This record gives sequence, C-alpha cells and structure tokens, in this order.
Amino acid sequence: MDQTGEKTGQPARTEINELGEFGLIDRLTEDIQLKQASSVKGIGDDGAVIKYDNKAVVVSTDMLVEGIHFDLTYNPLKHLGYKAVVVNLSDIYAMNAIPEQITVSIAISSRFSVEALEEFYAGIKAACKAYQVDLVGGDTSSSQKGFIISVTAIGSAEVSDVVYRNTAAVGDLVCVSGDLGAAYMGLQLLEREKSVYLEHPEVQPDLEGQSYIVGRQLKPEARQDIIAIFRELGIKPTAMIDISDGLSSEINHICHQSSVGCTLLEQQVPIAKETYDMALKFNIDPITCALSGGEDYELLFTIHPSEREKVADHPDITLIGAIEAEDKGITLLTKGGNRHTITSLGWNALKS
Amino acid sequence: MDQTGEKTGQPARTEINELGEFGLIDRLTEDIQLKQASSVKGIGDDGAVIKYDNKAVVVSTDMLVEGIHFDLTYNPLKHLGYKAVVVNLSDIYAMNAIPEQITVSIAISSRFSVEALEEFYAGIKAACKAYQVDLVGGDTSSSQKGFIISVTAIGSAEVSDVVYRNTAAVGDLVCVSGDLGAAYMGLQLLEREKSVYLEHPEVQPDLEGQSYIVGRQLKPEARQDIIAIFRELGIKPTAMIDISDGLSSEINHICHQSSVGCTLLEQQVPIAKETYDMALKFNIDPITCALSGGEDYELLFTIHPSEREKVADHPDITLIGAIEAEDKGITLLTKGGNRHTITSLGWNALKS
Repeated sequence: MDQTGEKTGQPARTEINELGEFGLIDRLTEDIQLKQASSVKGIGDDGAVIKYDNKAVVVSTDMLVEGIHFDLTYNPLKHLGYKAVVVNLSDIYAMNAIPEQITVSIAISSRFSVEALEEFYAGIKAACKAYQVDLVGGDTSSSQKGFIISVTAIGSAEVSDVVYRNTAAVGDLVCVSGDLGAAYMGLQLLEREKSVYLEHPEVQPDLEGQSYIVGRQLKPEARQDIIAIFRELGIKPTAMIDISDGLSSEINHICHQSSVGCTLLEQQVPIAKETYDMALKFNIDPITCALSGGEDYELLFTIHPSEREKVADHPDITLIGAIEAEDKGITLLTKGGNRHTITSLGWNALKS
Repeated sequence: MDQTGEKTGQPARTEINELGEFGLIDRLTEDIQLKQASSVKGIGDDGAVIKYDNKAVVVSTDMLVEGIHFDLTYNPLKHLGYKAVVVNLSDIYAMNAIPEQITVSIAISSRFSVEALEEFYAGIKAACKAYQVDLVGGDTSSSQKGFIISVTAIGSAEVSDVVYRNTAAVGDLVCVSGDLGAAYMGLQLLEREKSVYLEHPEVQPDLEGQSYIVGRQLKPEARQDIIAIFRELGIKPTAMIDISDGLSSEINHICHQSSVGCTLLEQQVPIAKETYDMALKFNIDPITCALSGGEDYELLFTIHPSEREKVADHPDITLIGAIEAEDKGITLLTKGGNRHTITSLGWNALKS
C-alpha cells in the first residue's frame, strides 16, 4: 500500500539524493510551460515575475525545516523569525525589485507554547519593520514533528527594471556586496559549541569576540541598501542573484543561464577578518568559506564595463572578476597564479 | 536551553490548543498594521489583496501536513497534488478573482522516491491544466519526518470586482454552490476502511457505489464555474467565503466580520443523496455533516435581494437563508420549526 516507493519489489525507485536539489527540481518541472499572458518568468530565478500592465510583481518562497535549516539549540526563536523573512526578501532584492508584502505559514507540534510562537512572531514583525513590508497572510497548522516555516515574499518593480540571472554578457564586470563566508564560520562555531555543551553541559559557550560571524549566521540582513545604491548611481545590473548557497553555486547559475564563462580573482573576494581568522582556527581555507559556505545573503551581480567607475570605490561593493566567453569556463585565478574551475559546490539542502 | 516552553519552571506557558487556530492567529497578529500603500487587505479573508493601479492581486497560501491534513494510506499522491492546488485556488475564487499562478514548496523525508514525487507533481500539473494556472516557483527541501506541502496561489481581478467577507448587509440572501457534507462523509468512509484494513489486511476496501463522496474527499474541485456564472449573470456577491471548515464556521466568519446576523433554513441546505444515506449509516445527522464537515470547497456568498431571480433557478446555486440584524444572532431554522444558534464548530486543525 505504500506509495512512497519504500516497499521492495516495487517498480523503479530513484533516490532523491542521487539527483540533488537542483536535479530534482529540473526533473519535476522540465515539462512545465507558462500559459498565462501575465507569467513573465517562472522557475529558474530568485523569484517568479508576473506582469500587470507595466508593473512587474516578483514572488519568492522558501521553506525552513527544523533540524534541516535551523537548530533550536542555538537559533533563538526571535532571530529565526527575523531570518525566515530576510532570506525571502533577499530573493526579491536579487531581482532588483522592492519587497512590500509577505505571507508566513507555520506548522508546529504541541511542544511549542503560545509564548514561544509570540517570540517567533516578534522576529517576523521586527523584520517587517526593518524592511517596510506588511505581513498580509499565512496559515497555521499542526505538525507531527518539529517546526516548519514557509514564507512567501511579494515585491514590485517597473517591468524594465527587473534583473534576471540569464542576462550577463561577455565583458561585464562581476561584483559582490559586503563580504562572504562569515555566516558559514558562524555556523561552524555554533555547531562546535553545541557539541561541547552536549558532552559537558557545565561549560559555558565560548562565543567571545565572535559576534560578527555569529550574527551573520543567526540574524542575517538582506541588501536593500544595495538596491537603493543602484537607483542613486543610475545602475541597472546586467544579471543578479543572491548568495544563499555560496559564491561558487551562484556564479555557476549566472554563467550557465547566461551561456557565458568568467574569471574570478581569489585576492579580490571580500572576506572579513573575523571570518578569515576563524577559518584558519578550523583549518579551513578562507576562500573555501566564501565559495561554498552559503547563507551570506549578499548580492552577486554583473554590470556593463562602462559602469566600473560608479562602483569601483564603493565601500559596500567589490569587483571580483569579469564575464568571459562560455568556452573559457568558470574559473578562479588564485593568489598563487593558478586557475581552477569553480564547480557548483553550494550547500545542498537535500544531501543525506 | 529549550525555547519551546517545554521545561518546567519556565515562565507562563499557554498551550496552543487553549486558543484554537483562529484564536492563535488573532493573538499573533493582533498588533499588525498595514503600512504599504499597495496593501489593501491583510489577514482575515480568504486571500490578501494587493493593489497595483486598478489591478487587485489576490494571494492565498495553505500548508498541508502529512498525518494532520492527509494520510498516505488512502490519499493517492497524484490526487494529493491536485487537491493541494485546488484548495488554494478555491480561496482566490472566494475573493471573486481569477487565479493565474501558483508556487509549490515541499519538504520530504528520504523515504520518498523521485518516482513518488513525480506522481505528486503529475497531480499538481493536472490541476494547473484544469484551472489554467502556471506553476511559477517553489522550494524543495528535506524534512525530518513526513511530507509537508505549502502552496501559494496568486490571482487577479479589477479592484472593484473583489468581494470580501465583511460586506454582507441586512436583507441580503445567503447562497451556496453545489452541495455540502460529502467530503466529510467520504473521509469517514475512508477512515473506517483504513481501520478495517489495519485489523484485517485480507479484507478488500468496501467503497462500492461511494465514488461521489470519496471523490469529493480525495479530489475536490474549486468553483471556477461559479465565478464565470457571476460574470455571465452580472452578479457581484455582497460577501463571499469558500467552505473549507464547514458551513457553520464560514457563516460565522461572514456574519461576525460584517456585524450582522442571519437565519439559515435547514430544509434548504443542499445535501447529496449519497451523503445523506452514508450519514444515516454512520448514525450522523446529515445536517451536521453540512454544518461542521468541511473540505467542501463550495462558495458561500450573499447577494442583494434584487438579484434573487438571477440565481433562484440555477442548478448549481441554492438559496439557504437571509442576512438579518446582528442582534438576531446566527441561527438555523430546523425542519421541525426550532431555531438553533449556529456556533463556529469548523474543523480545527490545531485541536490536539
């Protein structure tokens, strides 16, 4: 009677982790064709784009699952609510649109009290205030186990302002906001302190002086300021994506979808001192944190080379490489002068 | 360290089921104020309404959790995919809008094969085809246990066409589409057959001649045809809601939000013969199925009395009562001539 494919002797069973998250999405959605005139962009970018007259409405949705995406041992519920909103807003900004509404659905087991949920919603409301978005709907349900959060963010832009992933061109400059790898090192630190706590509950967590990397993990921000800077400087990026799965994964999305290659310069990739130092303590190469860490929620974007001067000296934007012909591949030029192919090693939510 | 409120000796702990689903939502969202000019309607109707020029965009979202909302023992995955879409589309129609896009997020444990998910997506795609909506996005994640589905539907209408719950007026007629209680009796039958199967696996399920009520439970439809009828007949309902939690719950929403009362006539409430017969077999009063069953996904709406002739003879629409002053209460006039208050006994997803 089991439909999940568990029973032996059933027909073909392909394991989900054979395909990975992106492979699974491709397989489930490969035959989908958009029929509605209003559907401008479907699956395959940070958000879907729906057109009403000259207004583009951008919709993005994410699901966060306890034990997979967060751990209530060290994710305070208020911060979790804040983060659940911010990661979705980041997708709207990554389309060069402004988020204006969110919906929040949750499923919870009876181990949660009303007061615990109020903490979570305090974080949701704090994010709504910080980013000027309205909570306009959602759903509340029971779960058999754990806490599941589904947030949908809705934003808008003029149709001509929307920026996609698949429009980078040869010669464009590759830019990134902020710095990379901090959230990943914050997670490593929190996981280490959790292990220590579980073995020696009397030891107090040692997070001294690590507020930057821990903060980047527990309470990330989305780069609404960068979108405002684009407006001020009169820049429209040629392509853009937000960094949720790590620089290597995101640059692969832009290059593959745009049918181009690129060279990124290791020495240009922005890494904060706290991230760098903690990576060395953990015997991790700092560039690996930046490439594969994920959860940075920075913006990775390309601009026409004529825009170089507008961003060259901006403290929040770093030029890290250039778009090249597709046959040049997607490569990193290391500090030592070696060239490595950047494979898509982003964090895979579906790895077993 | 536990934030959920589990630990003894913590401050105030209020159990979620003390408040119920609607009480919990009220408590978590009571201080929310809409700030964006585009936010026309937030929490409290079938969908949120966002305005871009003269276009109203309606957004609705639902979460379905294995073991709470569905049981894979008797919910075929393809039907489940279909139903997950339809229940959201129903909310868009209930605002007198036309759904055009959906997003689908899922969290799955490793017990699901790719082939099982393809079955589920076949149902999603069948619903998209039947209702002319595009699947434009979503998220795919692991779960620790069970299958969780979150669907968001997006529709549009002219701003002046949107129908809310809180605009019924004294003298309006109360109408309902289709018939009520069938999905509930289908569920009772499926649950009974499951119990039999678990105790006596050699006994084949006895669903003979029950395809109507079982179909209403496993593969419901949303009433896009009724919205088309409104357009044809030139009717704009004065208030509308879809029946997901049962007639009693929904009429209470309309009356409370509109500050009115009503009388519904028991003998007018449409109940299919199969539903009626099965209710008697289960020793349930058929009107109870219609009032408290839920999952009908019919439309409950009110119209101005001058529109009576337009709907009076329509085979898919039944007049079941009238809106009265608030102090008259929300009552059912039984076949025997007694008057009972209709309390909101809708199915409560959060009852323990």
